[in-house]
Amino acid sequence: MRVIPKIMPGFMELLPEDQILFNNMCDTIRKVYEKFGFLPLDTPILEYSNILLAKAGGETEKQIYRFTKGENDISLRFDLTVPLARYVSQRYNDLVFPFKRYQIGKVYRGERPQRGRFREFYQCDIDVIGENLSLIYDAEIPAIIYDLFKELDFGKFTIRINNRKILNGFFKDLDLENEASSVLKIIDKLEKIGIDEVKKELSELEISDDKISKIEKFISITGSNDEILDSLKSLNISNDLFLEGLNDLDIVIKNIRLFGVSEEYFNIDLTIARGLDYYTGTVYETKLDNYPSLGSVCSGGRYDNLTQFYTDKCFQGIGISIGLTRLFYQLKEANIVSSKEKSLIKVLIIPFSNQNISYAIKVSKVLRDSNIICDVYYDDKGIKQKMKYANRLEIPYVCIIGDDEEKIGQITLKNMKTGMQDTLSIEKAIVKIK
Amino acid sequence: MRVIPKIMPGFMELLPEDQILFNNMCDTIRKVYEKFGFLPLDTPILEYSNILLAKAGGETEKQIYRFTKGENDISLRFDLTVPLARYVSQRYNDLVFPFKRYQIGKVYRGERPQRGRFREFYQCDIDVIGENLSLIYDAEIPAIIYDLFKELDFGKFTIRINNRKILNGFFKDLDLENEASSVLKIIDKLEKIGIDEVKKELSELEISDDKISKIEKFISITGSNDEILDSLKSLNISNDLFLEGLNDLDIVIKNIRLFGVSEEYFNIDLTIARGLDYYTGTVYETKLDNYPSLGSVCSGGRYDNLTQFYTDKCFQGIGISIGLTRLFYQLKEANIVSSKEKSLIKVLIIPFSNQNISYAIKVSKVLRDSNIICDVYYDDKGIKQKMKYANRLEIPYVCIIGDDEEKIGQITLKNMKTGMQDTLSIEKAIVKIK
Repeated sequence: MRVIPKIMPGFMELLPEDQILFNNMCDTIRKVYEKFGFLPLDTPILEYSNILLAKAGGETEKQIYRFTKGENDISLRFDLTVPLARYVSQRYNDLVFPFKRYQIGKVYRGERPQRGRFREFYQCDIDVIGENLSLIYDAEIPAIIYDLFKELDFGKFTIRINNRKILNGFFKDLDLENEASSVLKIIDKLEKIGIDEVKKELSELEISDDKISKIEKFISITGSNDEILDSLKSLNISNDLFLEGLNDLDIVIKNIRLFGVSEEYFNIDLTIARGLDYYTGTVYETKLDNYPSLGSVCSGGRYDNLTQFYTDKCFQGIGISIGLTRLFYQLKEANIVSSKEKSLIKVLIIPFSNQNISYAIKVSKVLRDSNIICDVYYDDKGIKQKMKYANRLEIPYVCIIGDDEEKIGQITLKNMKTGMQDTLSIEKAIVKIK
Repeated sequence: MRVIPKIMPGFMELLPEDQILFNNMCDTIRKVYEKFGFLPLDTPILEYSNILLAKAGGETEKQIYRFTKGENDISLRFDLTVPLARYVSQRYNDLVFPFKRYQIGKVYRGERPQRGRFREFYQCDIDVIGENLSLIYDAEIPAIIYDLFKELDFGKFTIRINNRKILNGFFKDLDLENEASSVLKIIDKLEKIGIDEVKKELSELEISDDKISKIEKFISITGSNDEILDSLKSLNISNDLFLEGLNDLDIVIKNIRLFGVSEEYFNIDLTIARGLDYYTGTVYETKLDNYPSLGSVCSGGRYDNLTQFYTDKCFQGIGISIGLTRLFYQLKEANIVSSKEKSLIKVLIIPFSNQNISYAIKVSKVLRDSNIICDVYYDDKGIKQKMKYANRLEIPYVCIIGDDEEKIGQITLKNMKTGMQDTLSIEKAIVKIK
């Protein structure tokens, strides 16, 4: 009885050429994270359910992959933040603070499968954890996003920045503290549904017209970063939290400039709140200017009390996350990226006949010792078949070895793009390939 | 209510300095695999249970993490070979053969937890898959192991090689085909229990003394590779399978030499069978000479019909696997490796006071643009506290920035090992750090 080979819906599995592209992105993300001093972390994918669900409820609890084995109630992690909170709570005596860590790994959410939604996906996270973190970290995060997305090269992007204290202070000032989270959810939809629909939904919350018009005025504040800061100041709101947030945002914007982030790449956006209720300060979203439909490709913010469910110790944090699996899928769909290499092999060595395999092996050793990725076609096939292999894998150079080449201790190197070929020494071939 | 932060037994989670070491090993393995032309693959950790268990039974079925969610019967993969078989069966029209793939990923086995045994662990696999694979691949595999373990630098090692056809042919010749797997299991224990115990256990299988003495003679064959091949020939066994295996082994040994593997690093060992019943040709084990108690650190072999449970198409394969989590644990326990870096940071930039942060940020940008991993201490602490951070993370250079430095546009660079410090231009500092 044969089993039909297939994977579950909502799981991404790539062909080699796409996997190479995916890995290149992953490598770039890791390199930039490391350049800013973040340390690697790798936590288990399986944890005790009561650890992972210490805070969660609602959607998370419904989506989580959870099961028992023996006496253990086990779940698959659904993000990298909860494991970080558990890790810091458990190991803080061994860590040096501020603790800057990155983690790139798979997380699991049993969502209803649909196009572009994944049940297993990579998250690429950085977080800075400390007991009292300088505001400069709030400016360093956009500097990292800037470096990273410049390097990833998906075209012009904009880092949108807001501060939850401004939002919360504003709502306090309006006496709408209790409605704040509902109001924020509505505001969050502004781009999708437009200002009229937003106003309609706000009135359904029984918010007075006067307050709605103040909210409208507030979320309509746009312009350059300095213009927005000026507009906020001229609102003359005296709420302490609001003023604190405004002051923080002012400092953060000034420092982002010091990091060399070009002004056209970051913009205050007062409508950004970020769904998660744990953000308490600066929040970020990042959009690709030419592909706004992708939504935010890199989001995060500052939060207080990361570890409250596991320890008395109080740690603040600030971080961002990239949902790489979804992003990769979207970028491919939108033709923003496409695979460039069918393989990593730079040279395919082709022994003309089985008699030439010994010499082919020796040549492969010299090439590899010069850090050139190469492969030898060992199977006993005709020369056409061997060339076809190189063609199908789009290998840029083929190195043909027959009796003639062996006799004079040289090789015939063919450039598969131009079709040009030369018989030359291995040393000269290496120079040419490099 | 607080939850005590902990992870499940049998799961490895490292502190940053060990994670850096672990990642370095992973990077080395990936680099060597890629150098030999292997393509990356990343399959889901969750698969349908009937896919993963198409072949398995016994231990695998007991150990597997399996659960249902909605209508799906789901399991966590317990190796990377079954997913490869499923992948090749599913995608062979899109793949180019011989298909050389590597995969580095976590696998899961719910074993009884004990010291050095893990329930979640990394496997680092390569396999070559094709319809009819040249014997040269059997020689390339030891060349890869050789390159890899030279690079990993754990000291002298020996790649032990055998061929299942020799073993199976030998047992056929003795008319012990039906007892072969039991006999192999006993032989496999030779190193642990000694020859007398092996003979005793064989006689318990009701094997005649004459046959036991032939088995003893066979497994006692030692010496140089050529001596072993000569001894095997002089056994004058006429069984076809035996002769085929002997001829194969002869060719493989000759070709391993062509790959430049030093003779003292590989050795025929007729006692190696490898537990898994799917190996059909060459088999490998690798031992660290100075740490035999670690067992085999890299094993594998050639097998026929990888894909039989999923497709009519018949694919052969040859490959090896490294259980990196266990190996890492053992190497650390035996002090063969130890973490060398507490962080990846080469320079910590310390602004003397908050007034100097702007200049510190500018300096960090210049350093990072020169590909130097650096970090800035932003928090408002005393200089002692800031230096302590550099000390605890064992950062090799500290770059101090005070008003004096800012005034003359220079920095003070302190070598934390020697304690020497200099005030100099950023450009000169970069040269020094590099």
